[in-house]
Formats: sequence, C-alpha cells, structure tokens
Amino acid sequence: MAGSDTVLIVGAGPGGIEAARGVADLGKRALLVEAKSDIGGTPYEYYATLTPDLRETHEAMHEMVSAVKEHPMIDLRLNTRVVHSEGEVGHFVVTLQDDMGGRVQEEVGAIVVATGFQHFDPGRETQMYGYYEYDDVLTLVDAEQMFKAGKIVRPSNGEEPERVAFIQCVGSRDRQIGNQWCSKVCCGIASKQSIEIKRMLPKAKVFIFYIDMRMYGFWEDMIYWKAQEEYKVNYVRGIVTEIIRKGDKLLIKGEDTTMGRPMEVLMDMVILSVGMEPSKGTLEMAKILQLPREEHGFIATKDGGPLDTVSTKVPGIFVVGAAAGPKDIEDTVSMGGAAAMKAVATLNRLAIEVR
Amino acid sequence: MAGSDTVLIVGAGPGGIEAARGVADLGKRALLVEAKSDIGGTPYEYYATLTPDLRETHEAMHEMVSAVKEHPMIDLRLNTRVVHSEGEVGHFVVTLQDDMGGRVQEEVGAIVVATGFQHFDPGRETQMYGYYEYDDVLTLVDAEQMFKAGKIVRPSNGEEPERVAFIQCVGSRDRQIGNQWCSKVCCGIASKQSIEIKRMLPKAKVFIFYIDMRMYGFWEDMIYWKAQEEYKVNYVRGIVTEIIRKGDKLLIKGEDTTMGRPMEVLMDMVILSVGMEPSKGTLEMAKILQLPREEHGFIATKDGGPLDTVSTKVPGIFVVGAAAGPKDIEDTVSMGGAAAMKAVATLNRLAIEVR
Repeated sequence: MAGSDTVLIVGAGPGGIEAARGVADLGKRALLVEAKSDIGGTPYEYYATLTPDLRETHEAMHEMVSAVKEHPMIDLRLNTRVVHSEGEVGHFVVTLQDDMGGRVQEEVGAIVVATGFQHFDPGRETQMYGYYEYDDVLTLVDAEQMFKAGKIVRPSNGEEPERVAFIQCVGSRDRQIGNQWCSKVCCGIASKQSIEIKRMLPKAKVFIFYIDMRMYGFWEDMIYWKAQEEYKVNYVRGIVTEIIRKGDKLLIKGEDTTMGRPMEVLMDMVILSVGMEPSKGTLEMAKILQLPREEHGFIATKDGGPLDTVSTKVPGIFVVGAAAGPKDIEDTVSMGGAAAMKAVATLNRLAIEVR
Repeated sequence: MAGSDTVLIVGAGPGGIEAARGVADLGKRALLVEAKSDIGGTPYEYYATLTPDLRETHEAMHEMVSAVKEHPMIDLRLNTRVVHSEGEVGHFVVTLQDDMGGRVQEEVGAIVVATGFQHFDPGRETQMYGYYEYDDVLTLVDAEQMFKAGKIVRPSNGEEPERVAFIQCVGSRDRQIGNQWCSKVCCGIASKQSIEIKRMLPKAKVFIFYIDMRMYGFWEDMIYWKAQEEYKVNYVRGIVTEIIRKGDKLLIKGEDTTMGRPMEVLMDMVILSVGMEPSKGTLEMAKILQLPREEHGFIATKDGGPLDTVSTKVPGIFVVGAAAGPKDIEDTVSMGGAAAMKAVATLNRLAIEVR
C-alpha cells in the first residue's frame, strides 16, 4: 500500500508549498500538483511585494519555492490537473492529466486542497466603475504589474498620475452581487500600494475611499498609520457610486460619509480593490472530490467553526488558504502547516490500524 | 536521548491543546504544561460562547479538551510553570515547578510557547470610562460571565438594562497608552455579545460605538449583518471620550462622526471592548527562553513576515496564538497545528543527523 505513504497536494501557492514541505519534512511523500507552469501561486505570479512588510515577493518566497523544487520527498507535477478521484481515506485513486493530455493514476492516502481564489471581475460590478471602458481604471493586480515594471504611469497617455484613488470593497460586502463577505486583505493591499505609489511618485496625491479600514492586528501601525503619517495618504470614508470620463480625467462621484456631503473629485487614475472569489480550480476540486461548499461557495470545513480550520467534511481531505474563504498569507501558511500535520497524522493512524 | 522525542508545550489554551494533540498524533511525546488548574485557556475559562458561530464554548471545545486528557502520548502537568531553561534545539533542559514548590527537570527536543494574551486593564485607559468607579461599566469578560449565568442585569441594582452600549478599541489603536495595534477580535466579540443580549432581552436597545468595524472574511455576514438585520443592533461610528453618572444612568459623551455632531446619550450599562496585551506568562517565557520580542511586546517571529507564522528567532522554539500578537481562535488553532508539524519535523531532522 504505497498510497498510504503519500499525500496529494493540489495547488502550489504559499499554502500548498507549505503543506508539501510539511508532509515531506515529516517523512512522507508529497505529490504536489500544479496546473500552471510554475509554482508560487497568486502572490508569486502577480504581486510585486507582500503585505504587510512590503518585502519583494520573489525574494521573500525564494526559500520556500526552492525547497519544494529540491526536496527529495516532494514529487512536483507542473502543468497538471486532477481530473478524477475515487476511493476513500487511506486509498484515494486520483487521475492526473497533464497539458499534453497524458493521464496517470496515483494512489494517495490523504489529500490537501490548496487551489486558492480568483480576483473579482470588476466587469460584474453593479456600480459604474468603467473598468473595461476607461484605460486609467485598474485593479490591484494591474497596479502590481506596474510596481514590478518599476514605473507608475497612466495607461491612457503614459504620463505619471498626479492624483490616484483606490476604491475599496469592489466585489466584496455587496449583497447585490451576491458576495456577502469581506475579502479581508484588500484594505491592507491598497494601503501597501498607496505607500509604494508615494515612494515612486512623492508628489502624487493618493486617496483611499473606504467603508471600514480593516487593518487588523499589527497591520494597524505597520501599514495604516505609516501610510497616513509618513506618506500622507488620504483616507476618505465614503461610497463611490460612479466613475465617468471628464476631459482626460476620471470624475469620481459618491458621498463622503464623514463630512456627510456629496463628493465629486477628479482623478488621473483609479485602482479598484477587487475582492476574492473561489477560483476555478477550487470549484473543480470541490466537484471532483465531492467536497460540500459553504454558503458563500468556498470549500466548507468540517463543522464551520473556529476550532478546526483545515478538515473538510470528507475524511482524509483537508483544505488550505483561500480555497476555504478569504484568507491572508499568514492564514494560508499556518493552515498549510496544520494540514500537513493532520494529513500525516491520518496516514500514521491508518498504518497502525492496518498493522 | 529521550529528550529528542519530546516536545514541550507551554500553555493549554486552544493553541497549546492543538499543538499537543498534533505532536502526539505524529507519534512524539507532548509534555503539556499549564499554570492553571484546568486546561482550555482564556475562551474555555471566560467565554460562554465562541466567535463567530456563537456555539457554547464548553460544548464546542469538549472534544479537544478530552482528547488531551486521554491521549497516551500527552503528559499533562497542571498547576505547573516553566521556571528555567538551558540548552539548545534537540537538548533543552527545562525546570518545571508546581504550585507546591516541587521542581523537576525534563529534557525536551523542541518547545512550543502558547501562553496567550491578557485583556487590557481599563483602569489604565486615558479616557474616563470609570470601570473601577461605576458598577454598570463592564468589560467583554464581565459580560461573558453574565451569559454563563444566563442572566443580564445591571450590577448596580439587579434590574434588566433597557439601553446597553459597547465601546470599541479600549486599550487598542491607542498611541497615548502605547498600544498601537488593533486587537483583531473585539469587533467580532462585541457584535456576538450584542446578539446574545438581544436574544435574552429582546426589548433592550443595544449600541456599538466604533471607529472601524473590522468584521473580516465571513464574520461580515455571520455576525455583522445578522446583528443589524435580525437583531436591530445600532452601530454608531463615533468616539466616546467620557462616561459620567447621571442619576442612576450612565451618560456617554463623545462625537458621532457620521452625523458630525457631539453626542450625549444615556445608558443603563456600558461594556468596554478591552483589547489584547501579552500575558504575564508570555512575558515570563520570553525572558526564560531568551526569545526576542517584537516592537509591540509580543514574542517575535523569525523574520516578522507573513510566510512563517510560528518559528521564533531561537531554533527549536515555536510560538502559537496570541503570544505572538492579536489573534483570533482560527489563527491560534491553525498556528497550533503548524507548530506541531515544525516541532516534530525538527526532532526528525535531528534524529537523522545523529544517526
């Protein structure tokens, strides 16, 4: 029963990497499957720097990324998806398919799902934010691409923006769209980005339009106070309802709820803080592994409560990171370690029962 | 070298329990030391129900608490403190002292610190909230005691309150006091308690005075929307500066920042949402184990970044939960599992090196 010594990990973002490393460090074989052509997940692919410490992502993640590639107990399969699964804890038989259509079957004892989130598509927004109409309306991810390139310019004309606005909760906390959750990390990411813009363009004016600034824990003074005091970022409590073009500028219309008055301000660039939704991979894995989803569509944990963050409703299958809901990197990495522990403990228990 | 097969876990709250269970389930001996006479930590001792699912704490934690007491690989020492430590990873020699003054030495290979937080003492608050002056000014913990007793009454006269106010960020987000962090869980706990008060006293009016409601992730609709829509809790964005007695009522003075006007409202009972500070045990362990603390006074993680939440700056010593900063139960339990994995992986690596 070779399968009993192997844990399948689906998705090689920070959570999947941490789970694979954990399983391997505990002496079991980790079969790490990633649909894309490289590991590292959403932060590694899209984010120039990490929240909350603004460290360069590739440098910060270098150690964990190389560890996975070099670990003798980790069998990494890139460009590969899980397309079928049967069996149960201790004896799952999964079918993997690579990009060329080649299929193999593997027996594994436990499974960790770390398939993450996708960013909300602002084209679905019911407010008129014009993401697909106006070149100078971006998302957090588009802005990260500029940071990676080392240059912040208005896509419409290649000039440096003088006034930049972030709009929070795009696709989050929004019942009309059906996303009745807070995406947890967007306040932190927008504040981090506002600091980066001010570092690159010290003369620019940067505004963040928000409902509540959810800078929990140490993020409070690591980024929120810092953004205000050192970088003079303007936080405006208000609701933006519409963005329209006015000359070569963008006119933001809404309400300043602190001042209690309507608001119309001109901007050169607007960045939409798009929230988290379950990724396509997360929805696929829920279906293939028959994992019940919770009411928001993410993979449900065993009892939905705070005391077990990684067990799913199916014995032997665990969930890590944003596949289970909006999570920051800290959450994701902690869950990766916890899932590695529980997956290996499950294999050990089964080995004892067989003996 | 028996020590190499043992992990010492200090503190038996949810994080320490999860770490001990994890270590034991991975086949190593867990030496679990708790200064108090029972396990379960702060939620088990003080909280009637858990955030965010409002499940009764003793019922929800029953499984994990019994698992620890019955596990053959967990050696639980109640009424016991760590008073000295020397050595290094793989060979720590720790001195334990029980309440009777009896001392023993134990050799352990790795250490997990899960000594948690203490609630901010509102007597230190620079605002005049009168916690030690007025009977009807309580803390979140005092309110939980009432929920446990199944009866919400004004301590001053034994009558049911008609108007109850929560004041958020007491001892948090406060530079004057020196606590420049957000305590992360108080928004959730206050909202949970407001629901519980409305369930017990449907006619009462409940107000929450806040700066930002930090109801991240699913807490948004699990408790925040629910409190407003089902239970008609009144959220008032405002700063409370003073509480004074007026007749047999409490007069709250401050500013309603949404309406932009001064505010004076009468209440029967006020509940202060007191934040998190490092516990005495956390400070003691930092000293005894020579663990550097981060700038807010909690135990520092290895690099302070988001990619490793449990390694401290000392090899072989890990930190779990609120000993490392403001954490919710989800964070704490995930970190407990991750620390168990890393502690056992450390022992395994050393065993291989010795061989």
